[in-house]
Amino acid sequence: MAGPFAQEKHPMQMTQPLHSAAEATPDKIATACGDRSRSWREMRDRVSRLASGLQELGLERGDRVAILSMNSDRYLETYFATWWGGFAVVPMNVRWSAAENAYSLNDSGARVLLVDAAFAPMVPAIQSETEHELTLVYLDDEDRPDVMLAYETLIADATPVADAEMHGDDLAGIFYTGGTTGFPKGAMLSHQSLWCNGVFIAKHFRIESEDGYLHAAPMFHLADGAGSWGSSMAGATHYFIPSFAPGLAIAEIEARRPTHVLLVPTMIGMMLDDPGFSAERLASLKHLMYGASPMPEGLLRRTLKELPQVGLIQGYGQTELGPIVSTLPPEDHVTEGPHAGRLRSAGRAVYGLQVRIVDDDGKDLPNGQVGEIAVKGPHTMLGYWNKPEQTATALKDGWVHTGDGAYRDDDGYLYIVDRLKDMIVTGGENVFSAEVESAISTHPGVAAVAVIGVPSEKWGEAVHAIVVPKEGETPSEEEIIAHCRERIANYKLPRSVELRSEPLPLSGAGKVLKRELRAPHWEGRERGVN
Amino acid sequence: MAGPFAQEKHPMQMTQPLHSAAEATPDKIATACGDRSRSWREMRDRVSRLASGLQELGLERGDRVAILSMNSDRYLETYFATWWGGFAVVPMNVRWSAAENAYSLNDSGARVLLVDAAFAPMVPAIQSETEHELTLVYLDDEDRPDVMLAYETLIADATPVADAEMHGDDLAGIFYTGGTTGFPKGAMLSHQSLWCNGVFIAKHFRIESEDGYLHAAPMFHLADGAGSWGSSMAGATHYFIPSFAPGLAIAEIEARRPTHVLLVPTMIGMMLDDPGFSAERLASLKHLMYGASPMPEGLLRRTLKELPQVGLIQGYGQTELGPIVSTLPPEDHVTEGPHAGRLRSAGRAVYGLQVRIVDDDGKDLPNGQVGEIAVKGPHTMLGYWNKPEQTATALKDGWVHTGDGAYRDDDGYLYIVDRLKDMIVTGGENVFSAEVESAISTHPGVAAVAVIGVPSEKWGEAVHAIVVPKEGETPSEEEIIAHCRERIANYKLPRSVELRSEPLPLSGAGKVLKRELRAPHWEGRERGVN
Repeated sequence: MAGPFAQEKHPMQMTQPLHSAAEATPDKIATACGDRSRSWREMRDRVSRLASGLQELGLERGDRVAILSMNSDRYLETYFATWWGGFAVVPMNVRWSAAENAYSLNDSGARVLLVDAAFAPMVPAIQSETEHELTLVYLDDEDRPDVMLAYETLIADATPVADAEMHGDDLAGIFYTGGTTGFPKGAMLSHQSLWCNGVFIAKHFRIESEDGYLHAAPMFHLADGAGSWGSSMAGATHYFIPSFAPGLAIAEIEARRPTHVLLVPTMIGMMLDDPGFSAERLASLKHLMYGASPMPEGLLRRTLKELPQVGLIQGYGQTELGPIVSTLPPEDHVTEGPHAGRLRSAGRAVYGLQVRIVDDDGKDLPNGQVGEIAVKGPHTMLGYWNKPEQTATALKDGWVHTGDGAYRDDDGYLYIVDRLKDMIVTGGENVFSAEVESAISTHPGVAAVAVIGVPSEKWGEAVHAIVVPKEGETPSEEEIIAHCRERIANYKLPRSVELRSEPLPLSGAGKVLKRELRAPHWEGRERGVN
Repeated sequence: MAGPFAQEKHPMQMTQPLHSAAEATPDKIATACGDRSRSWREMRDRVSRLASGLQELGLERGDRVAILSMNSDRYLETYFATWWGGFAVVPMNVRWSAAENAYSLNDSGARVLLVDAAFAPMVPAIQSETEHELTLVYLDDEDRPDVMLAYETLIADATPVADAEMHGDDLAGIFYTGGTTGFPKGAMLSHQSLWCNGVFIAKHFRIESEDGYLHAAPMFHLADGAGSWGSSMAGATHYFIPSFAPGLAIAEIEARRPTHVLLVPTMIGMMLDDPGFSAERLASLKHLMYGASPMPEGLLRRTLKELPQVGLIQGYGQTELGPIVSTLPPEDHVTEGPHAGRLRSAGRAVYGLQVRIVDDDGKDLPNGQVGEIAVKGPHTMLGYWNKPEQTATALKDGWVHTGDGAYRDDDGYLYIVDRLKDMIVTGGENVFSAEVESAISTHPGVAAVAVIGVPSEKWGEAVHAIVVPKEGETPSEEEIIAHCRERIANYKLPRSVELRSEPLPLSGAGKVLKRELRAPHWEGRERGVN
């Protein structure tokens, strides 16, 4: 099709940012983690050796390499070495049980597992349920179990190899998803998918070579993946905290002075609530991208007020898109003026992809009407690993059906009303749990809230709110409902409010696990979607 | 390679921006040209009809469609309809003779030619040298020759067809290049190449859906292509002037208020010199991208001073890359402070591609050393149409060898010293003509300048300057040389200066045709590169 004498070698590959940065700015710092620091030239060398070391373990092109670890520079090196060596990465969820971890190893067939000190104790339990032999590589320096190879030895003993040049539709990784919706499915993301995400995000995250990105969200998850692909594309410096804790994040930002960070809303709330929080300690931050779950409007306004120098950027996406769909830029984070309403929007589609709002039959809906978000672009997943039926449901003619209900305004802004399965049908009316949560979140006594549908003889489902009060506050049910009455229509009001002292159950990415909250109410009953 | 159950349908296609804009903002204005104005919804409809009309002419998937026309909304529709219909576009150079036009038709095999009123009179001469039958479509409404089909009738009579979904490595267009370097070669650019350019440029041109882009440079050329792909990707409104004239451009900007424009440096100079110029009349402009030829530093400083509200963005690229390589953002257009030197730079590589500086053997040179710029990325051409040998020279292992000499600093900025073939070798020293031109351009009596190497018994080549003085000025040879002596080393000084009253000869893209300037000096001699 390309015509006479075409050379068809036009890579779109995830090793490209590493090559580009090592060529353009070889002496710039690529990673700084604890007392280790590497230039882009060193990182390229180490990655080419680690890739070689993995090949020496007997892996062949296309094989899968799993990693179960807290955040570190070595996690990033593992991503790149997997790609450089010709393999696909399987980043494992740090919240998983041994059985779930074994499931992902059995499903993906990964025969090499890199693991750090935090997860090494779990390995025997994982191995007991894994159906094939595992080669284990230990990512830390101290206390290496005898059965594991040493990461640094693997690198030191290897001769650098040439980049395997995986590209385009070649599989870059299997990213398991579905923590909130049942059995995990492995979304197959190609080099093209992640590369496009990197280019899209470098633009919308406004990150440049001079900047620094802090990996604060877990690196197995595509929320941090978004920040990571974008930062690498820009040739920015990567910083790391092992896992998120508000005090640790604040201290690291104060000490290393990264300019960019990606956090999920719950993390932002925890940082603002931390006794050590001050805008001054976070003064290096230029942009904070948030996403992975809806940000309650109360928290969003509070963040704008408490971090006035930081440009907030919302990223909306999902694993099946590697992950980006749309972004809301800092200019739209305003609380006054004609565009103040955009604060409730998930922004506009990033350039390069198509977004439609469709009804149940897949037909386009006009702007202003609520339907399902469907996305097509060069970054959509290849499908779910080993799951042709689920693939066919999620991916129709190249369109990813997100399961998110939304409408679009005439300026192209998307307003997500709810996960379709979190939508509550009460007395024949649709109530979007996210809208009720937003209303409740603005109550001064509320720290966190989740709204679910519970069975009701009269209404089918009734709106039920689960509220975690702020330290020392005890808002009453009547107070919460009265607060909502000033903000939302009568049929959307919670019919019952439950105060909860422990935190809401969260997925590894910080999403509220509504399925768990719903479970006790629906025991022995059928909800349709769960 | 992608693994089990992959659906491999992940388009990277040039119809995507049209689909996306028509889906997200259907009622926004896509094109405004003279008294015609179309929304994105209308444009999508018209494009799908025009594609259908082209198919009805007997064209098959992969066939080429040529266009020879001044700028207009219909030129843009033709681009999109060619892609929508499954064809490749051949945009013809508006400066070409009938023989050159016939050459491109014979070479590309295009059997359909769309032509406007300006070029219809040339068609019989073109046809007399074209080896195959041509179907002619007339792009204007008045004075249609009988032998030509009417553009609007073709659209009105057609039934819309579905997008042919050309994508990835499918050929999007053949862009002829080589006006300044000999026989034209047809660079084959894929959908992936142009799509990547669109995404890259939308970022670096900082263009958004609310903005408007003025097509002022000729639409056959990839300089305007860059602006066009980027603006379409953003869903911005397109404005048009038939061809560049400074007064017309100023009037159109004042009347339509576009926010973005792409100009070649000679055009900028003409606008600033125009008696009708004022910063107020151009007040709508947010960003001006310039490129396609080096911008003399004198002109650049003058532009900064006279258009202080406009963010200047330099774009460096070439046809073989569809065209972008690097950009210099507004923040680096400063005349004071530690980064003032960046004004002489072509900026940094856009994200997503690799740039190396290589010696004659293709080996990497360290930062600071001058070599040839080589570029690899997903946007490189597929090759030259029907020219396997030239393809092999220009494209080695996927790397495009640009023919441009440059060095890179430690921050990743590229400094282009010269086209390698314009470099003057005098007494064993390399002199970069661009550097001498920059020095001379700052002389207040100089309107334009070109520096070439002329034969010298003593030095091999001698530095020779051709100067077009400003209206009413007559700088002397001694004055010019003395001016240079304060700015550049002795061996770089012009040995002779020639005043020229007529303008410098320019290519269709506004590049100085140095080959023409050199020709009389080198008659009967061999220069090596020409």
